[in-house]
Amino acid sequence: MGQADLVLRPRTRSEVQAMVRATARMGLPLVAQGGATGLVGGATAQRGEVLLSLKRLNQIRQLDTVGLSVTAEAGCILADLQRAAAEKNLLMPLSLAAEGSCTLGGNLATNAGGTQVLRWGNARDLCLGLEVVTADGDCWSDLDGLRKDHRGLNLRDLFIGSEGTLGIITAAVMKLAPAPRSRMAAWVTLDSLAQALDLLCSARTVLGDALSGFEVMGEAAQTLIAPLPLPVAPWAVLLELSSPRDEAPVREDLVAWLGQMLERAWVREACVSHSLAQFQAFWALRESIPGAQTRAGGNLKHDISLPLRCIPQFVHECEAALAQHFPGARPVVFGHLGDGNLHYNIAPPEGQTLATFSAQEPLINRVIFDLVAKHQGSFSAEHGIGRLRAEELAHRGNSTGLALMHRIKRALDPQNRLNPGRVLLASRPDGP
Amino acid sequence: MGQADLVLRPRTRSEVQAMVRATARMGLPLVAQGGATGLVGGATAQRGEVLLSLKRLNQIRQLDTVGLSVTAEAGCILADLQRAAAEKNLLMPLSLAAEGSCTLGGNLATNAGGTQVLRWGNARDLCLGLEVVTADGDCWSDLDGLRKDHRGLNLRDLFIGSEGTLGIITAAVMKLAPAPRSRMAAWVTLDSLAQALDLLCSARTVLGDALSGFEVMGEAAQTLIAPLPLPVAPWAVLLELSSPRDEAPVREDLVAWLGQMLERAWVREACVSHSLAQFQAFWALRESIPGAQTRAGGNLKHDISLPLRCIPQFVHECEAALAQHFPGARPVVFGHLGDGNLHYNIAPPEGQTLATFSAQEPLINRVIFDLVAKHQGSFSAEHGIGRLRAEELAHRGNSTGLALMHRIKRALDPQNRLNPGRVLLASRPDGP
Ligand SMILES: Cc1cc2nc3c(=O)[nH]c(=O)nc-3n(C[C@H](O)[C@H](O)[C@H](O)COP(=O)(O)OP(=O)(O)OC[C@H]3O[C@@H](n4cnc5c(N)ncnc54)[C@H](O)[C@@H]3O)c2cc1C
Ligand SMILES: Cc1cc2nc3c(=O)[nH]c(=O)nc-3n(C[C@H](O)[C@H](O)[C@H](O)COP(=O)(O)OP(=O)(O)OC[C@H]3O[C@@H](n4cnc5c(N)ncnc54)[C@H](O)[C@@H]3O)c2cc1C
Repeated sequence: MGQADLVLRPRTRSEVQAMVRATARMGLPLVAQGGATGLVGGATAQRGEVLLSLKRLNQIRQLDTVGLSVTAEAGCILADLQRAAAEKNLLMPLSLAAEGSCTLGGNLATNAGGTQVLRWGNARDLCLGLEVVTADGDCWSDLDGLRKDHRGLNLRDLFIGSEGTLGIITAAVMKLAPAPRSRMAAWVTLDSLAQALDLLCSARTVLGDALSGFEVMGEAAQTLIAPLPLPVAPWAVLLELSSPRDEAPVREDLVAWLGQMLERAWVREACVSHSLAQFQAFWALRESIPGAQTRAGGNLKHDISLPLRCIPQFVHECEAALAQHFPGARPVVFGHLGDGNLHYNIAPPEGQTLATFSAQEPLINRVIFDLVAKHQGSFSAEHGIGRLRAEELAHRGNSTGLALMHRIKRALDPQNRLNPGRVLLASRPDGP
Repeated sequence: MGQADLVLRPRTRSEVQAMVRATARMGLPLVAQGGATGLVGGATAQRGEVLLSLKRLNQIRQLDTVGLSVTAEAGCILADLQRAAAEKNLLMPLSLAAEGSCTLGGNLATNAGGTQVLRWGNARDLCLGLEVVTADGDCWSDLDGLRKDHRGLNLRDLFIGSEGTLGIITAAVMKLAPAPRSRMAAWVTLDSLAQALDLLCSARTVLGDALSGFEVMGEAAQTLIAPLPLPVAPWAVLLELSSPRDEAPVREDLVAWLGQMLERAWVREACVSHSLAQFQAFWALRESIPGAQTRAGGNLKHDISLPLRCIPQFVHECEAALAQHFPGARPVVFGHLGDGNLHYNIAPPEGQTLATFSAQEPLINRVIFDLVAKHQGSFSAEHGIGRLRAEELAHRGNSTGLALMHRIKRALDPQNRLNPGRVLLASRPDGP
């Protein structure tokens, strides 16, 4: 709960409305919180702020097996929604390592990504509708769950990803999909990131929609986790296939394709999961990286995205620049290569604590983010802006875009009461 | 060009900016126009308005075969983009009957749907970035084409679907996909719409992502077109499969599944395309319905969407209500059942002209749209609001939602100069 002066825990949407109205009368700033797993400091209240926890707002209102959707309240834990879908032999495609504690509202507020974006998109792409309490305490509801609906301006996608700065999400309709009949993973090692990119291009074409995940791990990331299915290599890829077809033919296709890749020497070694347990073990390894980083002493995190074609060159240049300016600093690189999204984290030189190393954070960020910008990438891919990257956005954002964002913020939250200081720094004039 | 006082035809983005600034100084309202195929009167200028045609802004700026995207200017014809992608063995998934003349800018401004939404989503789902000229004549550009990017509030999806009321789209990055290796269609006849829904549910589960289109046609729609592959039935379904796999095994899966459907008597008859020519012929039939309606004297159009589970009941109730209030009126029903989207059109009674019949349009609309609302559907699925449905939106829209839309409109176009009278009726106060 950070340093909040007051914590509110509504159980219903009307309680949320009443609390928003009451704090409005008192002019108090309000910080929405779901599972508090966000990585950019958006949900932690500061002194003088009121924390509004949505966790008790956690009913599943409807699961529509014909329309393939679930209507659930903002405080529902993502893993609970996945389970509810699985019970009906359906898939809730949103999936991320924090799924055991993050909430649907937080997922939507940050437009969360995760491991299945390649096939299913981010939280926004999976959302069919929202219920939102506005800064005035009014309720805007759009929970019909229609696949196509064009009734005026698109409010939904504006609230999604706004990190609690434009309104409080109280419920949402999310897309479901038929549960895949077969699911398997391959762990593949490679000599270079360029090869990983070639592998991705080939997989997309040959395996098509069956390809549902494509994760990459650099050498340092691999050494953090164990037991690896294959020896540590310069790069490892974890790719996932899911399909409505029977397992045997899908496996045949995968093995045949991997055989070609080995023959062409595009990959070093490859290993295909041969049971659900092994499939889960491969994923558990990949998902254990964040925790392993913490246990190894922590590092400076950068959640970046780049045009795919630029990634090998970027990583090459960035490594060189870091070696030059911060000798000994150790990049730990992994992420969702299929989406052009890398977690480009920097551990301190051997023997140095993170606390000492952090003094250099602004300089390190500048080196990395300048190179990201040079390659037309983004300094914020899926974790959001929050407080951590708000300065960065103010500094690096397109100025016309920022001016438009400020106008929208003022239009929907004129008192700047919802999550102030997150995403957009204090309101600024927008021109003459 | 409608009744425009002036027509402007910029060739570059900076010409667009100069024109927006010049007309701003003169306080002139500006109407954006692409291919002018829109069905809700949004792109037709009225007396006193300046028409801004984007058709000369038609360069393809980049086609990225690794990132799988195309960056193109707003005036590009959709079919030209499809062709450019096909030349690189890629697919531009957006597809609609007007593709030979509609433009990318118009597609995005209306968030166009079409025949492949089931698999690929609407225009919005396919867009990775925009370049927009604002009401002030500034330019906001976000053409990096990243799959994940979270740099502040989501302006992109707000401009998409805003039908020219918030800014002028000058270019966009659109997703491409590897071209499918096999593509086929099945024409299936059924006794009822409930059966069509069962068929859809089964197809989604069994055929999975290979299912790329699912269109339905009622009896009246079938009788408008020829030569039909199967005899006219109460309902016909055109379903499309596309897959990166070889044709033979995909066909086997399809035929086996259709065999089961026939055995269970869920379908009357089924016919699978056995060549690309026949595949195209099936689609040409489906796409000839709009033209055939015109040649048959025209009808009153309703582009509605509904929760899938409600569709059979809705169609049943609506037919009964129309028969009661407007004896002889003939529903011509077809559409994108996979997306819950029906084109629910009403032809005049035999012998009556459309002109005479149109006098009853407001009453007919009321009957239909009331029933749509009763079933939690939308009176506007994919064609937009424009001028045609602006009253309907003002009347039926959620009042909190409308107030938010007006605030956003005022924030981005304070002079109400961009496409005035489209989507939102003249600015209204939004409460105390
Ligand atoms: C181990 C680990 C792995 C992770 N992996 C990923 C990943 O792969 N992909 C990814 O995208 N993220 C990842 N994250 C980040 C985080 O889990 C996600 O951002 C998640 O969606 C946040 O959900 P939450 O409920 O915890 O939100 P919180 O942390 O509580 O809040 C996040 C932001 O949303 C706002 N908010 C929360 N609820 C609401 C609401 N109902 N209405 C309005 N605003 C609200 C908050 O004010 C805050 O600004 C990871 C985090 C951890 C710890
Ligand atoms: C035979 C036929 C079949 C159709 N089938 C479908 C279908 O299946 N699905 C579907 O969704 N639609 C369909 N439509 C409707 C129409 O084709 C689409 O809405 C199309 O996307 C409009 O594109 P356009 O370039 O013709 O836009 P226009 O008609 O020129 O404009 C449409 C709206 O967008 C605005 N606009 C145009 N360009 C810009 C720009 N660059 N910046 C800002 N605003 C702009 C205009 O002001 C107007 O409000 C069909 C139409 C016809 C005639």
